[in-house]
Amino acid sequence: MTDSPTDVVTMDKIVALCKRRGFIFRSSEIYGGVASTYDYGHYGVLLKNNVKAEWWRAMLQERDDVVALDAAIIMHPRTWEASGHLAGFTDPLVDCRTCKQRFRADDLKAASCPRKPSKHPGEYDECDLTEAREFNLMFETTVGPVREAGATVYLRPETAQGIFVNFKNVLQFSRRRPPFGIAQVGKAFRNEITPGNFIFRTREFEQMELEYFVPPDEADRWFEYWLAERFGWYTGLGIRADHVRLREHGPEELSHYSRATSDVEYLFPIGWSELEGIANRGDYDLLRHAEFSGDKLEYVDSSTGERYVPHVIEPSAGADRSALAFLVDAYDEEDVEGETRTVLRLHPRLAPVKAAVLPLVRRDGQPELARAVYDRLRPVAQVEYDEGGSIGRRYRRQDEIGTPWAVTIDGQSVEDQTVTIRDRDTLAQERVAIEALPAELRRRLEAPWRTPKPGAPAPQPDSTTA
Amino acid sequence: MTDSPTDVVTMDKIVALCKRRGFIFRSSEIYGGVASTYDYGHYGVLLKNNVKAEWWRAMLQERDDVVALDAAIIMHPRTWEASGHLAGFTDPLVDCRTCKQRFRADDLKAASCPRKPSKHPGEYDECDLTEAREFNLMFETTVGPVREAGATVYLRPETAQGIFVNFKNVLQFSRRRPPFGIAQVGKAFRNEITPGNFIFRTREFEQMELEYFVPPDEADRWFEYWLAERFGWYTGLGIRADHVRLREHGPEELSHYSRATSDVEYLFPIGWSELEGIANRGDYDLLRHAEFSGDKLEYVDSSTGERYVPHVIEPSAGADRSALAFLVDAYDEEDVEGETRTVLRLHPRLAPVKAAVLPLVRRDGQPELARAVYDRLRPVAQVEYDEGGSIGRRYRRQDEIGTPWAVTIDGQSVEDQTVTIRDRDTLAQERVAIEALPAELRRRLEAPWRTPKPGAPAPQPDSTTA
Repeated sequence: MTDSPTDVVTMDKIVALCKRRGFIFRSSEIYGGVASTYDYGHYGVLLKNNVKAEWWRAMLQERDDVVALDAAIIMHPRTWEASGHLAGFTDPLVDCRTCKQRFRADDLKAASCPRKPSKHPGEYDECDLTEAREFNLMFETTVGPVREAGATVYLRPETAQGIFVNFKNVLQFSRRRPPFGIAQVGKAFRNEITPGNFIFRTREFEQMELEYFVPPDEADRWFEYWLAERFGWYTGLGIRADHVRLREHGPEELSHYSRATSDVEYLFPIGWSELEGIANRGDYDLLRHAEFSGDKLEYVDSSTGERYVPHVIEPSAGADRSALAFLVDAYDEEDVEGETRTVLRLHPRLAPVKAAVLPLVRRDGQPELARAVYDRLRPVAQVEYDEGGSIGRRYRRQDEIGTPWAVTIDGQSVEDQTVTIRDRDTLAQERVAIEALPAELRRRLEAPWRTPKPGAPAPQPDSTTA
Repeated sequence: MTDSPTDVVTMDKIVALCKRRGFIFRSSEIYGGVASTYDYGHYGVLLKNNVKAEWWRAMLQERDDVVALDAAIIMHPRTWEASGHLAGFTDPLVDCRTCKQRFRADDLKAASCPRKPSKHPGEYDECDLTEAREFNLMFETTVGPVREAGATVYLRPETAQGIFVNFKNVLQFSRRRPPFGIAQVGKAFRNEITPGNFIFRTREFEQMELEYFVPPDEADRWFEYWLAERFGWYTGLGIRADHVRLREHGPEELSHYSRATSDVEYLFPIGWSELEGIANRGDYDLLRHAEFSGDKLEYVDSSTGERYVPHVIEPSAGADRSALAFLVDAYDEEDVEGETRTVLRLHPRLAPVKAAVLPLVRRDGQPELARAVYDRLRPVAQVEYDEGGSIGRRYRRQDEIGTPWAVTIDGQSVEDQTVTIRDRDTLAQERVAIEALPAELRRRLEAPWRTPKPGAPAPQPDSTTA
């Protein structure tokens, strides 16, 4: 067993596993693919749906003060004037007149000159770079049947603005008073010139955003609260505490709207990278939308008459990069009886499949009994039946997709109606009566999950959240 | 109690309830809204998430032969050449040179002349209509930072094509053989000139599509199978069997790719309208993508060497219009003690909130005990706590959002640790020990739901599926 999965995991191994097991494919692959665009296959959909369901659970089911929202991707174009995206959501780009390529002017060191790959653009004699020009990152399209007659609209570059423009409706119809939050999960689109690193940065991605509205004098306190809360969400779902950290933005990094921002960062194979940004946005957004819409966006206490514009704390997470972090953190290889076993040590609540039902052999009534066991478990959770190939090979397959428990039907099962449950991580086997299996699976799914993972150092959240 | 909800429900009542209770708002309302675009509020998100979860459950958890997929919205543009959308996904439109308005040429009777609303476009003397021209319904945008340098791409007008272009990957990596299906839930976009009827037809909408691949000689049988299966999904989730029907397309209605299509239709207040189309698409899609990609898209049996292009049965449902149908079908008004009670008789699995925990009064230790009860139930399901206003008013609120059970904490509760459970539909109250509540809630959520709804005629699926 390795001491730490960071010793063995690489992005190439994750990409290969994702393709081999049908988690994630290159998009439109039969047409040569689309750059930096990916499609989720069977286990990928189940994993990502579980990530989103856990986020919703943390926001809605486990708290009283957050309501859900699902706004349209194509919003009123005034939204992007008010938010500042139309004027300021840009990257500075330069063209090379020689090689006709385009680069981010502020990140030339990250690119190679196509003619002389050992040099950066502008460093090679033949490079002939233009001045930098600002290009907006929003995808533009037209509503109405023809371009000349239609209205220009944008694919939202973030879900947040859908929340701000609905603030008044939610306040009016959901009987809320600050502090309260509005949560949204959905697609956003950014026409980035340099996406990359698998599903870490893509032009089309899914956000999980909370806008938490608070009395102005409580903003600092709630900012600290959400830092701890969101850090704990990742570690609670199994991310090793020493693979995740909070990093405070310096003054030069802060967006114009932000009074304070900290990123939750994960130690990806590409280095520490942002999983989630948590920002104290002050009253910037509500004031801007009030100005552009002419509506008052404020809270009025009907009993005291007190009125104020709430301040906003925004924990903004990426569903795709969270899924990637859970995959990377779960990835492990270990030596079992002279062979390398690849295993995803996913938290059971995130695992695409909760249990696999496997007859030891394809005869002696075992497949029939296994099918009956399978039918009893499927109302409880997503389970799989597999009778193809040797039992060892079937275990390895389930290990690779992170299935926490394998239920094996053997010769004894046919005689005494018991089965073994094999634990993905410890490989321990426990014999259980078939009668008790549904309740046992439910119990295991609801029980607190063991931490730390095998081989991982003890979590030290205090040292990283300090 | 009314005999049938169709007697009382209207689209206006549904729209008003959706706004009043925060299910669905006009999009970007502070900017005057966006035509035919809606945002889902708290209860709307919960309802629609439940609709999608039930579709996934029926496709994945309750069957062995379907795998999930989540493809990108912006696909390779060759996809739309192969699918025929680039050439043929058009509406014929005419302009009026007098009033500068644009109309669907094939549906002028549905429009009013802006100058003379009692007449249709073209009927009034001053109308001066152009010849009809074909306009593509796909939203177009550009990948890459500037239009002149970027590639033209399209927002997918259906999720189906994401499945066809991934057929080869899924076949290779998921060890499937026909018959098997690939299921997808996601947004699609159509630049319709005449959307309308609330969330029934919008430019941005969410599909739940299955492409089911079968041996060619089994296509007719599987087509019939999916008609019955999908009809049963709606009635199983509480839609009255006499409010839903299957309607076979006539030869003149069939799309060019379709060998047979039947719609599942629901009796909306606007009349019988399509909920879901179920089509026998033959081998059209796989052959087209094989032709345009140069890849072989066929199934090869490795043991027999048999090879063929599977035929496709496609049940294609709308998540938004399904949610609307569930709302409409659940809507009821009845007279209770001289007052009109509005109630959503939603299936418990679809209901946004499963139980409300309500202290009868705000004193005598009842709120504290109610909070404790609430904390015990929230790990089980989405539950709500409410102590504001009279108990009657709080019941009405929960009735309007369709909460199946209200758990009331009264004077006796504080003494003997029991509560009453009030049934939304029958108004019957049952006293239960607090200790037993979590298991009781779980049991009720998993139990078969009573059908028919109060006041509804007995389901007669045989007569409508025949």
